[in-house]
Amino acid sequence: MESAKGVRDFAPEVQLIRQDLLGKARAAFERHGFSPFASGALQRVETLTFKFAGDEDVMHEIFRVTDQGKRELGLRFDLTVPLCRFIAEHKDLKLPFKRYEIGRVWRDGPIKLGRYREFWQCDADIVGSPSMLADAECVKVVVDVLSRLPFGFEVRVNNRKILDAIFSTLGIKEGHKAMMTIDKLDKQGEKKVREELSGFCSKEQVDKLLEILLTNGTDNGRLKTIEDLTGQCDGITEMRELLSYLGDVAHVRFDPSLARGLNYYTGTVFEAVLLDSEISSSVAGGGRYDDIIGQMMGGDAKVPAVGISLGIEPLTDALLAEKQRFDKTPTQVFVAPIKTPREAAQIADKLRGHGINVDLDVMGRSISKNLDYADKLGIPFVLVVGPTDLKEGKVTLKHMPTGEEHKLTLEELDSLDLSHFS
Amino acid sequence: MESAKGVRDFAPEVQLIRQDLLGKARAAFERHGFSPFASGALQRVETLTFKFAGDEDVMHEIFRVTDQGKRELGLRFDLTVPLCRFIAEHKDLKLPFKRYEIGRVWRDGPIKLGRYREFWQCDADIVGSPSMLADAECVKVVVDVLSRLPFGFEVRVNNRKILDAIFSTLGIKEGHKAMMTIDKLDKQGEKKVREELSGFCSKEQVDKLLEILLTNGTDNGRLKTIEDLTGQCDGITEMRELLSYLGDVAHVRFDPSLARGLNYYTGTVFEAVLLDSEISSSVAGGGRYDDIIGQMMGGDAKVPAVGISLGIEPLTDALLAEKQRFDKTPTQVFVAPIKTPREAAQIADKLRGHGINVDLDVMGRSISKNLDYADKLGIPFVLVVGPTDLKEGKVTLKHMPTGEEHKLTLEELDSLDLSHFS
Repeated sequence: MESAKGVRDFAPEVQLIRQDLLGKARAAFERHGFSPFASGALQRVETLTFKFAGDEDVMHEIFRVTDQGKRELGLRFDLTVPLCRFIAEHKDLKLPFKRYEIGRVWRDGPIKLGRYREFWQCDADIVGSPSMLADAECVKVVVDVLSRLPFGFEVRVNNRKILDAIFSTLGIKEGHKAMMTIDKLDKQGEKKVREELSGFCSKEQVDKLLEILLTNGTDNGRLKTIEDLTGQCDGITEMRELLSYLGDVAHVRFDPSLARGLNYYTGTVFEAVLLDSEISSSVAGGGRYDDIIGQMMGGDAKVPAVGISLGIEPLTDALLAEKQRFDKTPTQVFVAPIKTPREAAQIADKLRGHGINVDLDVMGRSISKNLDYADKLGIPFVLVVGPTDLKEGKVTLKHMPTGEEHKLTLEELDSLDLSHFS
Repeated sequence: MESAKGVRDFAPEVQLIRQDLLGKARAAFERHGFSPFASGALQRVETLTFKFAGDEDVMHEIFRVTDQGKRELGLRFDLTVPLCRFIAEHKDLKLPFKRYEIGRVWRDGPIKLGRYREFWQCDADIVGSPSMLADAECVKVVVDVLSRLPFGFEVRVNNRKILDAIFSTLGIKEGHKAMMTIDKLDKQGEKKVREELSGFCSKEQVDKLLEILLTNGTDNGRLKTIEDLTGQCDGITEMRELLSYLGDVAHVRFDPSLARGLNYYTGTVFEAVLLDSEISSSVAGGGRYDDIIGQMMGGDAKVPAVGISLGIEPLTDALLAEKQRFDKTPTQVFVAPIKTPREAAQIADKLRGHGINVDLDVMGRSISKNLDYADKLGIPFVLVVGPTDLKEGKVTLKHMPTGEEHKLTLEELDSLDLSHFS
C-alpha cells in the first residue's frame, strides 16, 4: 500500500530535524510578539476561490471535497487566505493582530523536484498596521530564525510602488507582466528576461529598465538613482523608512529587481536566499498586502497587513544536506534488562522522573541485540540491568560512541548527569 | 465568510492552551522513548477503506477527494491507519518502532457537542512487541501526561481475551455485540445495559455476566473471581503480568467491564477518565491490536502492536473550563514608544536578544491606548520609551497587574530579570 502521490510520511530522523526547525521558528515568532494561531484546513470553496485570494494557477490546484450536506469545500492552499477569512469574520478583533501559524497546505499541481501536493507552511503576519515598523518587524523575525541555522543567507527587500513608479516613468504599460518578468532575473538571467520584456516593451524601455535594476551600489545610492529617474514617490519614502529601522540588522539589502510572484502584494516585498547552498529556491519571503482583507470584509473597510512565510520544505532539505549523521530518536538512554524486566522498568521510570528520555527493551532481547538496536538508532547510552550487578545494588552504563562502561549504584542514578559520561 | 461546518479556527487564547498541552504530551512521549513521526493527511482511498482498518461507521465518514490524475484519495480519519500503512510499506524498518504523532484528522459525521469534522489526535504506539512490558509503557505514558495536568483521573484497564473467556464460559454466542453493550455500563447504567443484553442473552446469562462485571474488590480479587468462573486463560495471565509491571503506578485499576468501541483491539484495552469533572468522555484510550498490520502486509506476517490516543479535544475543553483568565499572547513585555520608534525598536531587539518575548507598538498609538491594548491582551509588562527618560539613558518598566513603575537604565536592560518586578 502506497502513499498518495506528492504526499510524504516523515520518519523520525526527518521529523526530528523538522521539529527542531519549527521549534526555532516558534521561539523567534514569540520573541517578536507573535501569538500562535491555527486555522481550519478544510474551508468553504467560496473562501478559497475568493477573487482576491490567490493567483489563477492556484485556483486550479485546489483539492475539492463535498461534505454529506452537499456543501462544496476545499483544502487550504496557503495560510494567508484562512487568516484573512478569520479577520473578516471577527470584526471585533483587537488590532494589530499578530499571529503565526505552522501547518499543512495542499495543492493538486504537477510534482517536480522539491514540489509536493501536501506540504507545510510557516507564516507570521501583522494585521492592522500600515507602519513600516511592522514591515521591519517581519524582516527582523526572518533574520532571527535564519541566524540560528547553520547557513549563510541574505534578505533582499523591495517595494512594489517603486517598480510601479519606474514603469510609469518609462511609459511601460503592462506593469504586472513586467513585474513578473523581472522577478525571473535571479533565476533565468538577464538575456532571457531581456527577450521576454522585448515582447511588450521598446528596446529603449528594456535598456533603461535593466540598467536601473542591475546597477550596483549601496542601498541609498540605488534609491537615489531611482529617485533621479522617477522623482519623489511613496515607494522610495517607505523603503527609506524601512531601511532606517533595519539599520542595525545584518544580511539585508535593497534590490529593486525583486518582485515576488503573488498578485496581492501592494508595497514592501522581501525574500531570503541561502548563500553557497545547493538550495536555490528562496527560504523565506513575504510582503505587504493592504487590500485583500478589506476586500473580503466588503464595504469600505481598509485593513493593512504584512507578513512572512518561512520555507520549511527547502530549509529541511538544506538541513538534511548539511548533516552527516541523523539521530533516529530523541532517546538518551536505552535500558537493557538481563532477565530483570520489573527492576529494569522501575529504573527506566526513575530516570524518566528526572527528565531523561529513556527507552526500555520490550522484546526480551539479548544484550548484544539490544546494543545493536541502540547503536542503529543512535542512542548514546545503554544501561544494562543484570542480576549480578543488582545484587550489589549496581547497574552498568555504557557510552555507545566510546564503548566506555561505568558501574553506578542505584542511588547514583538519582543524580545522573549524562554529560559526565560522554 | 464562514468556516466550514464542524471546522474550527483556534484563536491565540485557545491555541496557547493547546500548545502547552501538546508540549507536555510530546515531552512525556520522548521521556518514554517514543520518536516523532508525521504521516500524510491525504491517503489513497484503498488504504483508508482497507477492510481491517476501521469500523463501518467511520468508512461512511471519509472525506473523499479526487486528484487531477483521477486517483481516489481521502482525508485520514485517524492516525493509526496511516501508521499501519507506513509499517506495511517499509518492511525493513527496525522493530520495535516506537513513534508518536500529533495531527489533524477528519470525519464527515454528525456534529454534536464536542464532536467536530476536523479535529486533532495525539497518538503513541509501539509496533513489533508482543510483551506486556510494551502495554505497561503505554499505560505509564498516559499516567505521566495526565499527572502533569490539574485534574484527578483514573485509568481503567482490561483485556478483550478475558471478556471472550467469560462469554464463552457463560455460553454467550454474540460476543462482539455483548462487548459493545457492556462498554456502555459506565455511561448508560446497569438497567439500560441489562435490557439491551436481554435481547440476545438468557436472563441467567445476563445476571451472571453483570454480577461478575460489577463485583467490587481489589484487582487481584476480581481476577481471582473471574478465574474461578472461566478457569485459567491467556487474558488473565496477561492482565496479571501487566498489573505486576504497573505495581508502582498510581491511578490504574482493573475493570472487566471496559470494552472500548473499536473492532481491531485483540488484547489489552484501557481508558482514562477525569474524576470530578464536567468532561464525561474519556481523555485517553488505547489497547493492543496484534492483527491489523500483518493483515495489511498480507501473507503470514504477524506484527503485534499496542498504542494510546490522548484526547486533545476533551482535555482542551477541561483546561478551558478550569481557567479563570486566558493569556491571549505569549508576549512578556510590550514596548511603547513616545515618538521614539527607532530607539524603541532597538530596545525591543536588545531584549529579544536576551530571550524575552517582546512586542512593539506599530500603530503609533498614545501611551494610554498602548497600556489599554497590553492590558486587554494580558501582557504583564509595558516598557515606556520616552524622549525625556532617554536623555538620562533611562526607560520606564510598568508591571501591569500591580501598576508599579520602575525606572531602569539602558544598561540594566542587558540583565533584565522580569521575575524581580512581578
